[in-house]
Amino acid sequence: MKGINDISVAVIRRLPHYLRALEDLSARGVERISSSELSEIIGYTASQIRQDFNHFGGFGLQGYGYNVTHLTMEIRTILGLNREYKICVVGCGHIGYAVANFSNFYEDSFVVSSIFDADPTIVGTEIVGVKVQDATHMLEYLKTHPVDIGVITVPKDAAQNVADILVECGVKGIWNFAPINLQVPPNVIANNVHLFDGLQSLAYYINH
Amino acid sequence: MKGINDISVAVIRRLPHYLRALEDLSARGVERISSSELSEIIGYTASQIRQDFNHFGGFGLQGYGYNVTHLTMEIRTILGLNREYKICVVGCGHIGYAVANFSNFYEDSFVVSSIFDADPTIVGTEIVGVKVQDATHMLEYLKTHPVDIGVITVPKDAAQNVADILVECGVKGIWNFAPINLQVPPNVIANNVHLFDGLQSLAYYINH
Repeated sequence: MKGINDISVAVIRRLPHYLRALEDLSARGVERISSSELSEIIGYTASQIRQDFNHFGGFGLQGYGYNVTHLTMEIRTILGLNREYKICVVGCGHIGYAVANFSNFYEDSFVVSSIFDADPTIVGTEIVGVKVQDATHMLEYLKTHPVDIGVITVPKDAAQNVADILVECGVKGIWNFAPINLQVPPNVIANNVHLFDGLQSLAYYINH
Repeated sequence: MKGINDISVAVIRRLPHYLRALEDLSARGVERISSSELSEIIGYTASQIRQDFNHFGGFGLQGYGYNVTHLTMEIRTILGLNREYKICVVGCGHIGYAVANFSNFYEDSFVVSSIFDADPTIVGTEIVGVKVQDATHMLEYLKTHPVDIGVITVPKDAAQNVADILVECGVKGIWNFAPINLQVPPNVIANNVHLFDGLQSLAYYINH
């Protein structure tokens, strides 16, 4: 079994996919599953699945397969979903609104604790029970009400400045939807989501 | 130069990233760039960049680098962005609303031509100048007003049914935001976006 810090980015990226499939199976009352059955559901090869799970010491038994509940719990633990993360959403456009709403019912692990926007017509309104605050108060507020993760859904030109403030306030992870690759110090993780890359790739495959 | 159909998925996935960087450079008046300068902006190694561009026959000149305008146009052509794609958005939740709005100002290549929802309070309203139609009329309408790409932002339980209708109406690509891997025939491309996988991966990296 490798040390958990040696696991490759590619494996980590696949874990949420496994988790989603396993939670579906669990909801349908499935108690155990083989790597080849999981392969049919998830689209990775059975060998890839076994190899991925071996990184964490296996969990499977020859001839039995994997215990769905146990595997679900293990993956949640590895991902660090067995604790709560406080989230701050900066920017209340459509994406910000969607993320704020989605986070709160998707997982107990992620709780939106503050929301900021620069638009005075939005400041003071409530999203998922959280009052939207004026973005100019962000630095001051977050220093006394720290969060783990900052979600950036502001326009491109404002994104790096927002990221700098979040970093100064001690966030450990940034989930960025602005179409820019943020510069952050090495102790902070920035996950840059480029939604429209997916649409452009679709265009490619439609043409070839 | 490889045949364009031999290009790997990984390379295709990087093209929108290159395009974004090049369009930024263009907007800042930069006319030419070396692979090592591009590497600093984009985060891939210079060797990776040269290797990727070699798939398309190079474009670069030793000692000169790449012509930004020319490279931008080449990548747009490869991705198939030099034509228009009609889009149908199914589901007007926050994500649907965000996608409909974003598509229309992001790229001339993607035009939202129809929008459907099941909620009678939303049907009849307008988004980006397009009237939201009742989802029960989708099959009938799309057969006479075909689209290239269907965007699915409905709840998970409704997603496969929507996909089946879109396929029946001849869409070539599906951009799916419902948390389910859609089953589609081999002549249709489904790009399943699992937004919250990114948040879960962030949780992992914050803990390790």
